[in-house]
Amino acid sequence: METLSTPRRTDLKRTLKLKTLQEALQTLLAQVKIRPLAEMVPVEEAVGRVLAEDVVSPLNIPRYTMTFMDGYALRSEDTAQAVPEKPVALRVVGEVFPADFPISTKVSSHQAVYVACGGPVPEGADAVVKVEEVTPDDGCIKVSRPVRVGENIASAGEEVKEGSVILRKGQILRPQDMALLMGVRKESVRVWRKPKLALISVGDELVEAGKADPTKTVNNYASLIAGLALEAGAEPLKAELVPDDAVLIEAKLKEAISKAEIVATIGGCSVGVKDLVPDAVNALGSPGVIVHGVAVKPGHVAGAGVVDGKPVIMLPGHVVSATMAFYLFIAPLINWHLGLGSRGLLPTVKATLNREVKSKTGSLFLRVSIKNGGDGFVAEPVHGGSNVLATLVKANGFAFLPPMETLREGDELEITLFSKHEYAHLGLQ
Amino acid sequence: METLSTPRRTDLKRTLKLKTLQEALQTLLAQVKIRPLAEMVPVEEAVGRVLAEDVVSPLNIPRYTMTFMDGYALRSEDTAQAVPEKPVALRVVGEVFPADFPISTKVSSHQAVYVACGGPVPEGADAVVKVEEVTPDDGCIKVSRPVRVGENIASAGEEVKEGSVILRKGQILRPQDMALLMGVRKESVRVWRKPKLALISVGDELVEAGKADPTKTVNNYASLIAGLALEAGAEPLKAELVPDDAVLIEAKLKEAISKAEIVATIGGCSVGVKDLVPDAVNALGSPGVIVHGVAVKPGHVAGAGVVDGKPVIMLPGHVVSATMAFYLFIAPLINWHLGLGSRGLLPTVKATLNREVKSKTGSLFLRVSIKNGGDGFVAEPVHGGSNVLATLVKANGFAFLPPMETLREGDELEITLFSKHEYAHLGLQ
Repeated sequence: METLSTPRRTDLKRTLKLKTLQEALQTLLAQVKIRPLAEMVPVEEAVGRVLAEDVVSPLNIPRYTMTFMDGYALRSEDTAQAVPEKPVALRVVGEVFPADFPISTKVSSHQAVYVACGGPVPEGADAVVKVEEVTPDDGCIKVSRPVRVGENIASAGEEVKEGSVILRKGQILRPQDMALLMGVRKESVRVWRKPKLALISVGDELVEAGKADPTKTVNNYASLIAGLALEAGAEPLKAELVPDDAVLIEAKLKEAISKAEIVATIGGCSVGVKDLVPDAVNALGSPGVIVHGVAVKPGHVAGAGVVDGKPVIMLPGHVVSATMAFYLFIAPLINWHLGLGSRGLLPTVKATLNREVKSKTGSLFLRVSIKNGGDGFVAEPVHGGSNVLATLVKANGFAFLPPMETLREGDELEITLFSKHEYAHLGLQ
Repeated sequence: METLSTPRRTDLKRTLKLKTLQEALQTLLAQVKIRPLAEMVPVEEAVGRVLAEDVVSPLNIPRYTMTFMDGYALRSEDTAQAVPEKPVALRVVGEVFPADFPISTKVSSHQAVYVACGGPVPEGADAVVKVEEVTPDDGCIKVSRPVRVGENIASAGEEVKEGSVILRKGQILRPQDMALLMGVRKESVRVWRKPKLALISVGDELVEAGKADPTKTVNNYASLIAGLALEAGAEPLKAELVPDDAVLIEAKLKEAISKAEIVATIGGCSVGVKDLVPDAVNALGSPGVIVHGVAVKPGHVAGAGVVDGKPVIMLPGHVVSATMAFYLFIAPLINWHLGLGSRGLLPTVKATLNREVKSKTGSLFLRVSIKNGGDGFVAEPVHGGSNVLATLVKANGFAFLPPMETLREGDELEITLFSKHEYAHLGLQ
């Protein structure tokens, strides 16, 4: 008989009270008492972040009336009669480059000033003719057509007006948004803070990757959940490992709750004799565990509690179940911290099922492998045990099917991709 | 008259020889002499990278025959006659937890062993009955139905066979692939090296962001190109700034070519008197500039050269033109370094045009703003000057239209999104 080294639960008949997916999430969100926070970040580091405020431009773009061509600034009226047979000669009285701003150069009647692309347009000029269109001739240029008022000129504020809103609260910042912020001389910008996610893997059998004990199991599920959380917009903290020991679990949980906005355990929340996590959550304070059991397959032993107003998610130890519970509880919490709707940062695609799928009395966490079928995406259900990581490697995304639902071959459904990497991945097929 | 402080070009009638998009890219690729390189990276840092080799599993998963439920390991034949009215009693002779592997525990006739989820199945047992399904009774358990052979048991190697290929060369690694690699005890993995991109912005008028000289222009276009390159899979080096000075441009280019796999200049490649970049590229060695002028709008002054076998891309100084040339030249070079096809890491979507667009004698770099129209994506063309960054902020992606093409309202076209951030961005609409 194997030795019994750790304390164990005595109520071997623990019963799960199954909640629907919606009940489970709503019960949790109703009890979470912390609020999303914003922070200032340097503009250069803001790509991928979500704006927590409207951004108003403090200046005009262009800052001054400028030309966007290499050419000659002139008075358009001087060229009104110009034709190829009888070009107009204008005397070149100066040259202006972008770095010369501000300038005192002026253009009078029948004069021209060379202006380099991006340079300010001298007072008196109202148009710029391109350098390729004129013939230089002894300190003059010859213009052989009428140049329109405003030709090749951009007015100050034409692109961005001082005081106007250039980016809206709730937007995800892209490289071009960052460039625009830099262009209006913003050095930092207010974005929603990424929620910190503390992960605690529970189990005597676990060992950290790299600690090559062949009799132990590598703690790779924490890396998976951390990787998914990072893609969803959270900041995962270094994952912690704890054995099946009530005291140690409680201590790790307490520390995690003090450091992170979202805490999640992996394993130790089922009905076995060493499933000590729910008791530890309850021991830490009120209300403790508020959801234990969800009417979904796989992953029905998932649960959630609240301690110090912060959510503590109990992810099952099976990898597919843990992933289900990540998308059920943690992804919405991340979205909420980022001021985003339910969709969040995860891409979705519409796809056509290539075979029938059915849910039973509970919801179904349907894994699918998506392929580009030429005429849109085709979703093939991926079946397999709740503990088979290979099914998640084969799949690209998921959908939650309501209870007692039958979807037939050819039905369209919306698939949430596991992460944005899936999109490039499935493009390679 | 503004002063003339720097050397300038004398051939003011520089003529561009326009190549088609395809000619321009092919001419460049034919002369590039460096080769993509692979590198080993720690598995934990491999998400988003592209595999440069097939990965073979060095071990079985599960490593041993295990149960994936908390329950009792037994001999199925002992339960063949079990019915609720007449349950079979089996003596519990031990208990096994995952951390106990390897075990010597055995199950004989009419015995059972408690096995925790993930634990090894003792010799002699061929099935596991769930803990919820039995009634404990004085050192025994009562089983009230026949348990099938193999029930709740996963055989060694059932998920992953030792020696089998688990991930293929060319795959983009996702969080679940990383977890699988960790699970088979891989600590590092061979991926394609991200090509380094050196960016040199050219122009007397430019100043680095944060150096708040209001008479100067912030070098934000380099940040835009660096941001796009990062998303496309490159490693952008810190952008350099150089004034319109042939000697300094040449020196910066030389340094950049020694450090990076791809070099790009921004600005200084048009036909103005201070457009000194092409001469600098030619001065550095053979073949020098091999493309100057592309039949595309905007961005026809773009060019490319090769020095020391490495590509030197001349991006125009106008931001939309520079972005066009990034997608024309640099994105394909990045894809090639990453062992990817033309699509690379950039997402594409099919969208329906909401108005007519026409190209003229050259190709058109068509910017579009994509909206989710309920029944698929709708693409609205975004027009505006080649130097208007705001048009890129309004847009999500682009398509290259061939010359003399007319697309009508309702036509479908494939749009390449500027970066993967666009996908989440447009999901928020």
